[in-house]
Amino acid sequence: MGIKVADRLLNSARALNIMEEIGIDALVATEAQNVTYASNFWALAQWLRRGPQVYAVLSRESLEEESSLIVGTGSLDLVATQDVWIKNVIRYGFFSLKGSAENAAEGDWAMAEQKRLKELFDTPQHDGPATALAEAINRMGLSKGRIGIDESGISPAVLAELKTLLPHCEIIEATQTFRKIRAVKTEAEVERLTKAAQYTERAIEATFAVAKPGMTETELSRVFLRELINAGTDPALTVLGAGVRSALPSATPSEYRLAAGDIIRFDAGCYYQHYRADISRCAILGEPTEKQNRIYQAILAGQDAALAAIRPGIPAQDIYHAAMEAARSAGIPDYERNHVGHGIGIEGYDVPNLTAQETTLLEPGMTLCIETPYYEIGWGGLQIEDTIVVTDTGYQTLMSTDRHLRILNTH
Amino acid sequence: MGIKVADRLLNSARALNIMEEIGIDALVATEAQNVTYASNFWALAQWLRRGPQVYAVLSRESLEEESSLIVGTGSLDLVATQDVWIKNVIRYGFFSLKGSAENAAEGDWAMAEQKRLKELFDTPQHDGPATALAEAINRMGLSKGRIGIDESGISPAVLAELKTLLPHCEIIEATQTFRKIRAVKTEAEVERLTKAAQYTERAIEATFAVAKPGMTETELSRVFLRELINAGTDPALTVLGAGVRSALPSATPSEYRLAAGDIIRFDAGCYYQHYRADISRCAILGEPTEKQNRIYQAILAGQDAALAAIRPGIPAQDIYHAAMEAARSAGIPDYERNHVGHGIGIEGYDVPNLTAQETTLLEPGMTLCIETPYYEIGWGGLQIEDTIVVTDTGYQTLMSTDRHLRILNTH
Repeated sequence: MGIKVADRLLNSARALNIMEEIGIDALVATEAQNVTYASNFWALAQWLRRGPQVYAVLSRESLEEESSLIVGTGSLDLVATQDVWIKNVIRYGFFSLKGSAENAAEGDWAMAEQKRLKELFDTPQHDGPATALAEAINRMGLSKGRIGIDESGISPAVLAELKTLLPHCEIIEATQTFRKIRAVKTEAEVERLTKAAQYTERAIEATFAVAKPGMTETELSRVFLRELINAGTDPALTVLGAGVRSALPSATPSEYRLAAGDIIRFDAGCYYQHYRADISRCAILGEPTEKQNRIYQAILAGQDAALAAIRPGIPAQDIYHAAMEAARSAGIPDYERNHVGHGIGIEGYDVPNLTAQETTLLEPGMTLCIETPYYEIGWGGLQIEDTIVVTDTGYQTLMSTDRHLRILNTH
Repeated sequence: MGIKVADRLLNSARALNIMEEIGIDALVATEAQNVTYASNFWALAQWLRRGPQVYAVLSRESLEEESSLIVGTGSLDLVATQDVWIKNVIRYGFFSLKGSAENAAEGDWAMAEQKRLKELFDTPQHDGPATALAEAINRMGLSKGRIGIDESGISPAVLAELKTLLPHCEIIEATQTFRKIRAVKTEAEVERLTKAAQYTERAIEATFAVAKPGMTETELSRVFLRELINAGTDPALTVLGAGVRSALPSATPSEYRLAAGDIIRFDAGCYYQHYRADISRCAILGEPTEKQNRIYQAILAGQDAALAAIRPGIPAQDIYHAAMEAARSAGIPDYERNHVGHGIGIEGYDVPNLTAQETTLLEPGMTLCIETPYYEIGWGGLQIEDTIVVTDTGYQTLMSTDRHLRILNTH
């Protein structure tokens, strides 16, 4: 226990500023990603499916002392075994756990976990998530407060019950508030995003290293997935298409067999400690054709221009226009895209979106995927996608490999 | 294309009956699992995150001819490459795809996919998901119809727009309707669930086969995950705890090192073609103690009694009571549980839940996980969980391994 401030995912200063700006006394995370972001707590059941109710309640007056975590009794073991910085844990519902760990040896961490679990288990049991959440808000002295609740994860029945339990509270929706807070990353988040991106890069390179004519996309994808497993990540997205199938935007690995001259396009990523990677690298199995080279150089020029445009204070749409103009000048006159990238974090699509319409101003600490894919039915697709963080003066890449088109041996 | 009726996930007869029962003319799936269930179509973006809008609209009057699939243009390639039985595809939104595949050779399936993609791409583009969904309902002649919409996956803004586009429709919520339909499985579903369970069993056995003192839980979990990847499944749930950590209900693999005498408890599963496994097997690294044996025999007796109670027409709560009484008589007098299992299908928790309160009557074709875990802080946990299908006279297991406690060599 006792997580260091530097290891917190939550951008505390930004959260408190935004809570003040919109005039709320507490901010309640209810959806899996927001709960983990707000508390560092990962609730297995909540990530696995919709339904299980877990909340993090952030106090504006005393973030450190008065924030609370609301969790079902059956998930208390995850609290006992994780570094969660929120001190107050309020549990609800019945779950049978016998035994005790009174004699847990100090040096034995596995027994110390059992002891913490027993302590958590011995706290009062609340009837359900609504009573537990109301208790948290009442303990904060906010029975007449203004509360922002992330509406995306709370069940409608619980929300209705909560309103009857807290008749004098003003409750407002706050899912978009979380997205706004999450747009500017903390150090701990950038570290996780960096590892997610770099483990994915390594898995892609390991897959390119074994690609040869006759292998199927499925076989290739398993090389990639095993590398991700070995790195301790969880696979998230494996778009992998070869030959004409590289033109399929969401190419699902198939029994298609690689042939000499094929493009191999990866658009892929994993979760590393719940943070997403989403990157792209491409290879040619053999010598590239003139068209393969021309298209690749054009989308590379587009990505280069996007990267060169990045600096704090500019609207996100400027990046879009920079990329489009460069790709069009450099070899694809009719290049078209909805967007040339997007924010990334604990979700694959964070704020901002890099479209022609997006006026959000870039800020240092935003993490962005910059991508310029090209898809042509009957021919193939090529793509480059990198993850970067906006700095005070421009950007810094989170990645470790360069952006050239890989040329693979055919034997 | 041209999926066989036997390969359909949807229980068409049950869906039509229930639509008639509640008096709706069309039923709209909006959430990832319900869309896949209703159409066999798997939309990557929708499964990966909340937000992307994909719908399947089932027509009561003419399920075969008039049902529609609503999909963003950027996901059309997934329609072109999958077996989707719904004939009408309505797309919305801009996505840039150049090229053509007019000369696609008949024998080259990869080019044939490109040709289908081009055909889909050449259909009219609708502005957004609301206009596309309204178009589907209008084409069915249901502009004054009664429409059930799965409220769990449609965005509130789209639903509001839809109501203005279809002012004379009566719209009712239908998420629970899907859960009710899905409770009784089709052959295609049972086949997927069987493979999911059996691939998980094999991965567990392969992991037990290499377990030895000194290995960490993390190392063990990677053996398990690689086996799942090699089998072509996607990992979903890897609860794996050894020694005292086997008492942690959601044990997350850690750096704990196995010691002789430890319990190894798996509660785990994968996705096989989007269908879930959730099973449990346990082993002892060495000779079991008297208590390990006694507890295991008691929970096995509980599971045996639950299985013996299964037959069509009984309320689900009877299974709960049978399991509890047997486990208490057989060696754990104070055995307590919230439930002794649950339905399973395209979601990990389908109808019914096997609790003391559940009055749902069992029907042939329901697939159930039957589980009797025992958790004791400071000692450990043991569990048995199997997946079965209710038959006309009782049940049939979907699994291939027996239920004894595994005894592993320590060298």
